[in-house]
Amino acid sequence: MGRVTDRARIRTVRVREGRLYAGRKGDHVAVEEPLDIRLNGRQLSLTMRTPGHDVELIHGFLHGEGLIAHREDITEGRYCDGAVVDDGSGFAQNTYNVMDFTTARPQLLPLVGRNFATTSACGVCGSESIDAVRTKSRYTLAEDWQLDPRVLLAAARGMGEQQPVFARTGGVHAAALVDLEGTVLVVREDVGRHNAVDKVIGWALLEDRLPLRDCFLLVSSRASFEIAQKACMAGIPLLACVSAASSLAVQTAHEFGQTLVGFTRAAEDGDGRMNVYTRPDRLDLAAVEG
Amino acid sequence: MGRVTDRARIRTVRVREGRLYAGRKGDHVAVEEPLDIRLNGRQLSLTMRTPGHDVELIHGFLHGEGLIAHREDITEGRYCDGAVVDDGSGFAQNTYNVMDFTTARPQLLPLVGRNFATTSACGVCGSESIDAVRTKSRYTLAEDWQLDPRVLLAAARGMGEQQPVFARTGGVHAAALVDLEGTVLVVREDVGRHNAVDKVIGWALLEDRLPLRDCFLLVSSRASFEIAQKACMAGIPLLACVSAASSLAVQTAHEFGQTLVGFTRAAEDGDGRMNVYTRPDRLDLAAVEG
Repeated sequence: MGRVTDRARIRTVRVREGRLYAGRKGDHVAVEEPLDIRLNGRQLSLTMRTPGHDVELIHGFLHGEGLIAHREDITEGRYCDGAVVDDGSGFAQNTYNVMDFTTARPQLLPLVGRNFATTSACGVCGSESIDAVRTKSRYTLAEDWQLDPRVLLAAARGMGEQQPVFARTGGVHAAALVDLEGTVLVVREDVGRHNAVDKVIGWALLEDRLPLRDCFLLVSSRASFEIAQKACMAGIPLLACVSAASSLAVQTAHEFGQTLVGFTRAAEDGDGRMNVYTRPDRLDLAAVEG
Repeated sequence: MGRVTDRARIRTVRVREGRLYAGRKGDHVAVEEPLDIRLNGRQLSLTMRTPGHDVELIHGFLHGEGLIAHREDITEGRYCDGAVVDDGSGFAQNTYNVMDFTTARPQLLPLVGRNFATTSACGVCGSESIDAVRTKSRYTLAEDWQLDPRVLLAAARGMGEQQPVFARTGGVHAAALVDLEGTVLVVREDVGRHNAVDKVIGWALLEDRLPLRDCFLLVSSRASFEIAQKACMAGIPLLACVSAASSLAVQTAHEFGQTLVGFTRAAEDGDGRMNVYTRPDRLDLAAVEG
């Protein structure tokens, strides 16, 4: 799997009834490498990611930061020619770890780093604290649909079957966009859960599918503030995570009117469960028993 | 639990044999709030964290960044007086989300942000890429000890029993420092796994215990590059994570001579297993059967 997984020789150790057993075997680990993201020559971010789908990742990242809205906002994106290393072959090899994007909206560039500006004013507090790290969404979330929870659980099962890197390494997160019929449109994996989300939203942006009014976002991880915010920025009305949601994810979903689902657990046999933190009315519970 | 967990009213949804069941209940979510970290008045970082042990977190963070080595390097640390919000009571409430630290070593401040400097040079590539994000450790890792894998598994079990926020929310990571007899010295929890590690290393720094030559670090999460690096910076010779390790965590552990253990799984009955990626010689396998 190329640069996505790496081979490793490991020692296995087992304890059974107090006795030690050891072995050796070949294993695979998920690749983690830095990606240097540049916009109009200016370094924006250095993120540790699993290589692959870098163009999607950067589009998604820039969209989540409020720096681009459409694919046309990026006029060029390329791996930096100068990012080379001699791998011992005597030939300079591109690392594919530095990408330079050019935006047609350079007027937005001054916004970069506004959250991390050096200032003596104290703006990180209570609701203001959220404002300080929050980018504003240009979309309102769709109200005109409902989802059968069984479709959500089936999609979670489907995403689980489309995680080849996880199957090999057990060491990456996944994100998926799913339509209201339960069709999984795209799955992306990454050592960073935010990167996996950036990759699927970047994919949608490149497919001219934003806002994602008729999709939901599934993530294999917890839902933090940043994941909820990225989903809101992309106009996604429902976010479902496999693990827990944080207080600030719940608060963000509440403010945007997003349906936030946690502990999405889908068993092989079709059974399953979930906890709904906000806006449960988007889940079709008309068929509820008892 | 004060600001560490929040109450939430949720809807529960279950599917059994194709039928839908729904309910309502009170639940708890882990609190996630921003922490604005300032050093000598300059904003260093804005991290999303679970409140509590902020002083430890910041000491650990600054140590991991190579900015401080001892507790004496910080002359003052306090919540910013001006970070107030009116919570409706008519009184200004401190948010406790902004901390100002003063360092006695301001000559190190120019190092801040060196990795994110705006430059047209391409330095993020191959081994150079790791150098670009890597801070140099002042410690070499201890070679004069061995650990029985059963002690490691018992400690993992012990850490699991000291995670009150996880028990209540299922939504936080934990990190623990454990001595060679298996005594759990400290456990900290946080929505961010890096923060949990910063908190335990900050605790050790404030206890004048660095370098942690006779301790190992347990984390409930995966091991990424940053976790491995923070452990190396603190002189910790063995890092054990409950989930997988990334390629760059393995490479970092290999370069520093750190023992890296993944998939540390300890069952209630004393059985368990682990995968050892690097330096298995620090695990005492003399008693291995067969």
